Amino acid sequence: MNGRTRRAGLLLMLLAVSAMPGPARAETMAEVLAASAAADWRPLDPDRTLVMTLPAGLVVIELAPAFAPNHVANIKALVREGYFDGLAVTRVQDGFVVQWGDPGALKSPPRPRPIRTARATLPAEFERPAAGLAFTPLPDRDTYAPQTGFVDALPAARDPATGVAWAVHCYGSVGVGRDLDADSGGGGELYAVIGHAPRQLDRNITVVGRVVAGMDRLASLPRGTGPLGFYEQDSQLVPITRVRLMADLPPAERPRLEVLRTDTAIFTRLVESRRNRRDDFYKRPAGAIDVCNVPLPVRPLP
Amino acid sequence: MNGRTRRAGLLLMLLAVSAMPGPARAETMAEVLAASAAADWRPLDPDRTLVMTLPAGLVVIELAPAFAPNHVANIKALVREGYFDGLAVTRVQDGFVVQWGDPGALKSPPRPRPIRTARATLPAEFERPAAGLAFTPLPDRDTYAPQTGFVDALPAARDPATGVAWAVHCYGSVGVGRDLDADSGGGGELYAVIGHAPRQLDRNITVVGRVVAGMDRLASLPRGTGPLGFYEQDSQLVPITRVRLMADLPPAERPRLEVLRTDTAIFTRLVESRRNRRDDFYKRPAGAIDVCNVPLPVRPLP
Repeated sequence: MNGRTRRAGLLLMLLAVSAMPGPARAETMAEVLAASAAADWRPLDPDRTLVMTLPAGLVVIELAPAFAPNHVANIKALVREGYFDGLAVTRVQDGFVVQWGDPGALKSPPRPRPIRTARATLPAEFERPAAGLAFTPLPDRDTYAPQTGFVDALPAARDPATGVAWAVHCYGSVGVGRDLDADSGGGGELYAVIGHAPRQLDRNITVVGRVVAGMDRLASLPRGTGPLGFYEQDSQLVPITRVRLMADLPPAERPRLEVLRTDTAIFTRLVESRRNRRDDFYKRPAGAIDVCNVPLPVRPLP
Repeated sequence: MNGRTRRAGLLLMLLAVSAMPGPARAETMAEVLAASAAADWRPLDPDRTLVMTLPAGLVVIELAPAFAPNHVANIKALVREGYFDGLAVTRVQDGFVVQWGDPGALKSPPRPRPIRTARATLPAEFERPAAGLAFTPLPDRDTYAPQTGFVDALPAARDPATGVAWAVHCYGSVGVGRDLDADSGGGGELYAVIGHAPRQLDRNITVVGRVVAGMDRLASLPRGTGPLGFYEQDSQLVPITRVRLMADLPPAERPRLEVLRTDTAIFTRLVESRRNRRDDFYKRPAGAIDVCNVPLPVRPLP
């Protein structure tokens, strides 16, 4: 959509709104959500949702097997063998990532926790064919990709010229830590983005999902003072009490949350409400939106 | 993202780079900076740099009179009358902003701290003529603006069609809190961005500068639990011991920092080193860079 079309669209909207009394204003996100129906939402998928317990509370991560089926299966295997229980957040680099995994593996000499049933490393899953993905595109131009949009709850991109799609790094995206070799990650070391979207990592890291609740508990952790934000003292490590697959939790302990579906007319309205804010505060609508500025509404189950 | 291996890899690269034949690897940021000359850097400008003392330490903010001359002058007046001393961080909204100012003004009924010499509100300075600005453009496309780049240390944008320029919201940008009216801010309430760049605020808020040191001290503060991330209890407020203009501090108390100039060939090389990373870790260079992903190197004065 070029600027003229967008302005024309905006003009239409303004004309429509101007039939109402008072100054022209667009729908707010709250108004869009208030107009949503029950079917516009879906509960978290218990079979691909992780619940991580930190001292500050829960962090809920929905995994994306559509983009990283092997890593997601391996992370579930790690979780089910209790691999993460008692491990720690080992790195908090301001404006970049919070990373968690095995502090023993970072020691010199390394004393890694053994992996019993899962695999330590897997071939990278940096991208996949775009065909077969239910991709909700955004019309907005992007610095890094030919096209961005959403695949279910996940911000993603695709290249029509090559037919390739990939999950992108936004605030809250979760990826697989690795060494220099592309195939050196396995999911035992994960990170979440806590700063401006580091899109240069796209297609260089296997993205496995996104945090859907508890980002504040990760992003407010003390920054590490070592190189790359690693904690330098064992006393600084933030312990992980446990990580569980939601499906393995008793029903009473499962997060009771639902997320807005992204393949719906209401989601299109929501994106537009954020692309062109014209309310009592915003004087100049942006006219465009970065995929990483599109919020994913999450709310308690009714 | 394994720290130990990456450090080993970096060491290896630094040792081997000149002799290394074969597949193209690009300059890293560290290599670019190592090649910089003293003249590529400039010290902080004492006459427009604020030093804010929080319990966790100092936050250093360089103001941008090129974009907001009246607000910068007013903020300096507020600082010089001691307005901020004993005020507090009142709001931390995860993924968005940390805001500081007068908690008394938020009470019901308000008990605002009197302003003695400065002004409470000023006409908005959302944009300015592009003419007369030393603007270092980036060639990369941007979702929100026709062109982005840097004006001194500040990420900025301009529209060649209208001849208008503005400072943009990136991680670390500092803006003037206001009420619904565009002219209702004065600088007594400021915020810094702690999440993905909220570019929808561009040209809706007066941007007055950027944090050049201490972002970690703002971004790791506990999130507020009230609406919009405001703290709900006085006990949660993060006290501001004092804010001083660097020029008013005794020389021994001034931050001894310099920043990389952005109007230099070395800065162009630095941007390219971040736009196309091709090293032992990055397998696929991004080929482009978002203005908010360009780092501003800051280092101790020699």
